[in-house]
Amino acid sequence: MSSQNAPLKAPEVGISGKKIVYDKDGKPCRTCNSLLDFQMVTGKISPGAAVKAQQKLHQDPQSSTDFPPDVEQIGRSSWTLLHSIAATYPEVPDSQKQQDLKQFLKLFGNFYPCWFCADDFKSYMTKNEPKVSTQEDFGRWLCDAHNEVNVKLGKPKFDCNFWRRRWKDENE
Amino acid sequence: MSSQNAPLKAPEVGISGKKIVYDKDGKPCRTCNSLLDFQMVTGKISPGAAVKAQQKLHQDPQSSTDFPPDVEQIGRSSWTLLHSIAATYPEVPDSQKQQDLKQFLKLFGNFYPCWFCADDFKSYMTKNEPKVSTQEDFGRWLCDAHNEVNVKLGKPKFDCNFWRRRWKDENE
Repeated sequence: MSSQNAPLKAPEVGISGKKIVYDKDGKPCRTCNSLLDFQMVTGKISPGAAVKAQQKLHQDPQSSTDFPPDVEQIGRSSWTLLHSIAATYPEVPDSQKQQDLKQFLKLFGNFYPCWFCADDFKSYMTKNEPKVSTQEDFGRWLCDAHNEVNVKLGKPKFDCNFWRRRWKDENE
Repeated sequence: MSSQNAPLKAPEVGISGKKIVYDKDGKPCRTCNSLLDFQMVTGKISPGAAVKAQQKLHQDPQSSTDFPPDVEQIGRSSWTLLHSIAATYPEVPDSQKQQDLKQFLKLFGNFYPCWFCADDFKSYMTKNEPKVSTQEDFGRWLCDAHNEVNVKLGKPKFDCNFWRRRWKDENE
């Protein structure tokens, strides 16, 4: 059997250094990988071009904004929205509002565009029930959830004592 | 009555050229204005410094990323999330999924961090019931909803025939 006839092996790691994530049908997941990893693994660009583009992206993070958002852009956007929701959630919400927030988080987990991120979020919520009884409780719960992801991605943890200053009011 | 004793009038327009939005308690709304408008109207920076910072922001849009997100950042993030949800919504969802999406959009409208944007979104949904029976229907409905906001903000409308290319697969 000549090596030329061997099927191409699907790459396991992208140029970002992260594992390539596949959908359940075996195709690379558009919303679970960085754009460049996805483009490389689907053969749209060569590994060499991907490395160059990755360097350019570091210098100019705006350069890919007109492409469908990748896993990182979706992640950043979603944390921005969720933390801002915490920042405007009532200090002392009534029970209807608390139920609504729990329901919103559950549906958010079901609709989140990156399936493996969604699985992680749902499993975090099973182990750590969302705390929704005050704004402070929810802001801290969310900060802890975000930190769990930070650790998984090798990013520094955020000191949750400062969640309000970061997401609500820079003077607090 | 000397003019020195007259109360300071709350500004109506910010340096962004947009109307300043106030919360129902009369205070400037942190999540409904641009960061610089909010800083200026709350006296954190002078109008002159705000104009300079606005120019800097145009040159380097990343320069304010560690502040609590303003109305524009929350808006961009939320559209990114919503369009990505459309891009991964099943092509032909079952009735449970359709109900869930309607419920998610309703709660999204209730929790959206900028109250006047949320009011607009909810009123759009009342007049234009979300179309959730296929991915294509939802993607177009959302694109139309986004365009309604684009028009309000004086931004160009997006051609919704291309929603998949913009938000799902750049090769479609």
